[in-house]
Amino acid sequence: MRIFGIDPGSLRTGYGCVETDGRQHHLVTCGVLLMPPKTAFPDKLNTIHSGLTRLLAEAAPDCVAIENLFHARNVRSALVLGHARGAAMLAAVMAGLPVVEYSPAEIKLAVTGHGRAEKPQLQQMVKLLLRLDKAPSPHDAADALAVAICHAHSQGRIAQLHAGARGPRRLRSWRHVPLASLPRRQAP
Amino acid sequence: MRIFGIDPGSLRTGYGCVETDGRQHHLVTCGVLLMPPKTAFPDKLNTIHSGLTRLLAEAAPDCVAIENLFHARNVRSALVLGHARGAAMLAAVMAGLPVVEYSPAEIKLAVTGHGRAEKPQLQQMVKLLLRLDKAPSPHDAADALAVAICHAHSQGRIAQLHAGARGPRRLRSWRHVPLASLPRRQAP
Repeated sequence: MRIFGIDPGSLRTGYGCVETDGRQHHLVTCGVLLMPPKTAFPDKLNTIHSGLTRLLAEAAPDCVAIENLFHARNVRSALVLGHARGAAMLAAVMAGLPVVEYSPAEIKLAVTGHGRAEKPQLQQMVKLLLRLDKAPSPHDAADALAVAICHAHSQGRIAQLHAGARGPRRLRSWRHVPLASLPRRQAP
Repeated sequence: MRIFGIDPGSLRTGYGCVETDGRQHHLVTCGVLLMPPKTAFPDKLNTIHSGLTRLLAEAAPDCVAIENLFHARNVRSALVLGHARGAAMLAAVMAGLPVVEYSPAEIKLAVTGHGRAEKPQLQQMVKLLLRLDKAPSPHDAADALAVAICHAHSQGRIAQLHAGARGPRRLRSWRHVPLASLPRRQAP
């Protein structure tokens, strides 16, 4: 399965694509789309949208994973970030790809095992999980790869659960045993 | 000049198009795009984008006017609104149209003469200015027409200022007259 992660922003939008079997992940591509600061805001959105449309066509992923943000410094920054996220999401939907969302805590937990991990920890774990020579830089690319890895782990867990549910051993260990069939305690 | 106004929202996106010479405005079209509440969020964005793309192609405006929001109930609603505004803005930019933004106070001031006017006042003034039989409904369509009328007034004022600056009479009445050349008051 090929997963394309996005870390959207109005000035820098990180992206990272991984190929995964649910356990082992391989880097396909990663990087950052930079919006020149003096560009008009609608043109910045167009740059995000057209850039991601091109990258999605090149990487040909099965789905897109994106950070689900409910927190921002203030209403103004939330509005600006919402525009960038909207443009990114639209690129995925228009490419006919399903979009999955994860909270920052879910991503950190899935990648580092700790829901409140710091950025450098996340970068180091992305490097280890993808067996890279150095941590992906800039951090926007590492963040995008982290979302993709988070979805890969989530899909891996779901696959394990399905395999477990289908397998006879697990079902037997959890099967319903009626009380009447249990051997009664011997009276002393 | 033909102006297309948009009042974006993730559940209801109002639109309204007016033809104007800067003084008199005529209604071209208005309405609202409704997003079914149970649709996935990325699909709602796609509905806004594709709906507006189609409407812009039909109305063929010269520019798009949109409300410039810096206020929202909270960060969560600002994020959601940001996505919808991003999708709307992107439809305009991808159609090759310039996007202009006005604050809610600027729109109310331009349409009703009062920066803190209520919604029913705005609807009534839109009805009067467009010489309609009844106020445009729902209010999302009226709000979108109000943004378009606000831009029409703004363009009208700019045109007046340009005409004034070019006309010889205005320039003469404001020309610099050196103090020495003025007739002295006669001593009594």
